[in-house]
Amino acid sequence: MTLTLTPIHGLPLYQKDDPLTSTILEAIRVEGIELRDSDILVVAQKIVSKVEGRLVYLGDITPSSMAHQLAEMTGKDPRFVELVLRESKSTLRVRGGTLIVEHNLGFICANAGIDHSNVKGLYGSDDDWVLLLPENPDQSAENLRREILGFSGKNVGILIIDSHGRAWRMGVVGTTIGLAGIPGLVDKRGDPDLFGYRLKVTQIAAADELAAAASLIMGQADEAVPVVHVRGFPYPLRDGCLQELIRPQEQDLFR
Amino acid sequence: MTLTLTPIHGLPLYQKDDPLTSTILEAIRVEGIELRDSDILVVAQKIVSKVEGRLVYLGDITPSSMAHQLAEMTGKDPRFVELVLRESKSTLRVRGGTLIVEHNLGFICANAGIDHSNVKGLYGSDDDWVLLLPENPDQSAENLRREILGFSGKNVGILIIDSHGRAWRMGVVGTTIGLAGIPGLVDKRGDPDLFGYRLKVTQIAAADELAAAASLIMGQADEAVPVVHVRGFPYPLRDGCLQELIRPQEQDLFR
Repeated sequence: MTLTLTPIHGLPLYQKDDPLTSTILEAIRVEGIELRDSDILVVAQKIVSKVEGRLVYLGDITPSSMAHQLAEMTGKDPRFVELVLRESKSTLRVRGGTLIVEHNLGFICANAGIDHSNVKGLYGSDDDWVLLLPENPDQSAENLRREILGFSGKNVGILIIDSHGRAWRMGVVGTTIGLAGIPGLVDKRGDPDLFGYRLKVTQIAAADELAAAASLIMGQADEAVPVVHVRGFPYPLRDGCLQELIRPQEQDLFR
Repeated sequence: MTLTLTPIHGLPLYQKDDPLTSTILEAIRVEGIELRDSDILVVAQKIVSKVEGRLVYLGDITPSSMAHQLAEMTGKDPRFVELVLRESKSTLRVRGGTLIVEHNLGFICANAGIDHSNVKGLYGSDDDWVLLLPENPDQSAENLRREILGFSGKNVGILIIDSHGRAWRMGVVGTTIGLAGIPGLVDKRGDPDLFGYRLKVTQIAAADELAAAASLIMGQADEAVPVVHVRGFPYPLRDGCLQELIRPQEQDLFR
């Protein structure tokens, strides 16, 4: 089956408490798409965060001494660093303007995913506003999934994504930060193991593969396309969660 | 524009020196797809390696003492480990049956990408055959691109992919190991940097995003689908190469 990914245009510039579900459903309708069961909507983290009121005014933030220290090492604003630390469990690397942390949500990313992009459009030239990730993206995805089911009667999967850098390779790729109604990992029955003939099972990070695919479409234009409609996802839908995709620290050779 | 990814069925079980280009073009025709300029074909590494004769008989391999030592640590066949070492510049991690190496081609991966999957089908139950990656996947991609241009008159991009594990996250994702006629990285004009107003340019690993997308389709079935046809890639095509996607060691915080 062909996999199709269609950008959803015409979404508003979201602000806190704006109705996300109804505006997305309307924009999908205007695109001429009739939603079906097992369709998936991939949603950029930014619009979820904005609607959930995750904008923070840096003027309200008092940096700790640790934040001051890391700010000096990285050339960043100490109030920004303070927020990164609050959003993180631990700091993995600090070098050359880069703060790589283990986010409170469990994944490894730069600057705890805190962003200033597009905030400017809402608040004039005031760069003292930054946008945190949603507090519980799996829950955000589940809320959206349920509301869409309520409004449209269609059982869709929801994937919330952000752009993450990677170890070893250049460039960012779309990466899952929350999901509902779709699998994070998929077990693929593998071949017998090379030496010993035990059944080798390969786990495919299907949600992350879809996140990357959708990101390809979100990223191309000057215009923001924060929602992508997906049809033809090749695996059975089930209730997945972000945690499936996080490698437990004791199994991680690269922290 | 909608991005569509279509699996190409009906390809043969390839062996050394089989005609790759003509069989792929014929299978695309049978799928009812008329190739256009700027279409992309994503090709699984395995069929390229097989056609290029990268099968190796382990009985021909004499392990070094280093290979014996690492074989003991990982529980692997020393001849297999010897091949991993020959295919690699350096070994990053050895733990719990896992050998993470810097491949001669520059990327970091497990077991130097050496695989035994599907080899069995060709050679009965003899598990002493393994499949190395193509020697120069960029060149393999370029050869395929040129031959398709010659046969069909269509200027397509070619992406050769494999499944790679990742630091920090569970599951494998489709990842670029060679490309021709498409960009590896794409510069996205970013917002002014948060503190200092220099123009921040985000580099998108577009080839890897497409690799992940195509992998989603290749991986789903018991039947192997080693070629995916892509239409609607949102960035201008140009001549890219694998090297764009490799983070130089001095910029890599996670080796």
